Amino acid sequence: MTVKQLTLPELVESCTASGIPGVGLWREPVQAYGVEKAARLVRDAGLAVTTLCRGGFLTAIDAHARVAAIDDNRAAIDEAATLGTDTLVLVSGGLPPGSRDLYGARERIADALAELAPYAADRGVRLAIEPLHPMYAADRCVVSTLGQALDLAERFPADQVGVCVDTYHLWWDDLVPAQITRAGAEGRLHAFQLADWVTPLPQGVLTGRGQLGDGVIDLPDWCRQVEAAGYTGPIEVELFNDGLWARDGHEVLAETVARFIANTPECRPPEK
Amino acid sequence: MTVKQLTLPELVESCTASGIPGVGLWREPVQAYGVEKAARLVRDAGLAVTTLCRGGFLTAIDAHARVAAIDDNRAAIDEAATLGTDTLVLVSGGLPPGSRDLYGARERIADALAELAPYAADRGVRLAIEPLHPMYAADRCVVSTLGQALDLAERFPADQVGVCVDTYHLWWDDLVPAQITRAGAEGRLHAFQLADWVTPLPQGVLTGRGQLGDGVIDLPDWCRQVEAAGYTGPIEVELFNDGLWARDGHEVLAETVARFIANTPECRPPEK
Repeated sequence: MTVKQLTLPELVESCTASGIPGVGLWREPVQAYGVEKAARLVRDAGLAVTTLCRGGFLTAIDAHARVAAIDDNRAAIDEAATLGTDTLVLVSGGLPPGSRDLYGARERIADALAELAPYAADRGVRLAIEPLHPMYAADRCVVSTLGQALDLAERFPADQVGVCVDTYHLWWDDLVPAQITRAGAEGRLHAFQLADWVTPLPQGVLTGRGQLGDGVIDLPDWCRQVEAAGYTGPIEVELFNDGLWARDGHEVLAETVARFIANTPECRPPEK
Repeated sequence: MTVKQLTLPELVESCTASGIPGVGLWREPVQAYGVEKAARLVRDAGLAVTTLCRGGFLTAIDAHARVAAIDDNRAAIDEAATLGTDTLVLVSGGLPPGSRDLYGARERIADALAELAPYAADRGVRLAIEPLHPMYAADRCVVSTLGQALDLAERFPADQVGVCVDTYHLWWDDLVPAQITRAGAEGRLHAFQLADWVTPLPQGVLTGRGQLGDGVIDLPDWCRQVEAAGYTGPIEVELFNDGLWARDGHEVLAETVARFIANTPECRPPEK
């Protein structure tokens, strides 16, 4: 999504040329390209698919909408399995129209996970609940903190349901360090994503994530924390940014690699 | 601030005509009108000044900026005393330029409160730390949750430092009910403000607060919670909204009274 201006073949070529070993994919461009074909493309290039984004949107009250959401998540799980990734990231969903009941919405997510988690496990896919920044609680994701995400996840086996830690969503929360430790101890740290926080936020607050190093988040400290919690998985950079999308994608990818190296010294193995 | 298009005399007249018993004032219009003169105006109309907004911005690292902030907060305390309100609301401040240290910023707030709280107490003024929504953590207020605000406040006597609970900032947080109970038990629930949450958020996210009933916050439930925690103080409505500011202020005030009555049945004493 950081370089969504690139086609899938361009993305794969640019990743390979940059020495990037894996890539997180989004469902829409994969579906447009063809899931099997996309799987072959990345496999032939020797690229790992780190995660698939995204399932979720599991808060509907209406019965038809709920069934449709479950079906769509089963399809997402199938796509993840086809792509060869073991992790499907979930954006849980906001309040349904007319509802003011955050607690009910969170319980409906748990109900849906009870259906989806075994289905995913049978296909070798883990579900990673991603807490989103509280500014998205109404319209996108009622799971706003890492603590809430773990409270939901811990009703299920750790190899079925875990969490996705994204610095953009969680950087402000003083309870996060303890919850990262908890996530690691429970074996639920399934994905780790970096983005920086810059202000002012744009209208709609969706497309203003900062390039690594441009904002206020202490990224090396986050890397130290997840590493100390035992995380050894891939580190994704996920930037939604109108300014970056307007530029040449290969250039943005190269810049992102350079920013990653400059801003996350703790995250990388020592040079040989 | 809900009707900032009104002059102070218009505001006082409109409040009196609407049967509103008290009003929260902001420093800038009070200073422009004259603090003593404003105090006389509201006193003569029989209006209570519920709170003064706002002190704070206590996170600077630079020594000169810190001294200036302390001086400005002493002036705000003096103004509150002159206006006859017992509560000064504090917006604590964001990260200083170039800093990524949320923990340090929060400690500098505590250091400043140690200087300001006794000064305020001598003048009959309580300081109310207002946690702001996490979307303001970088540039406006590093105190993002009620738990954080109480952690800061509890270092001081409860009659010197408490908290301001604003539904707009805190509605998303599942830890809030327990923290409201804590605030009540500690005697630190010093102010209570209502605003609704509507989306999409505007550019800069400052001026998009919803009129009561237009959004997703369960306002009656909030009123029940603060009442159950022992709160008997005034209830303020604080809307920052470009749309409301563009309309006739008297009309907006009348609408706000009607919305308050319709949306907060639990907050009002039974009709005689």
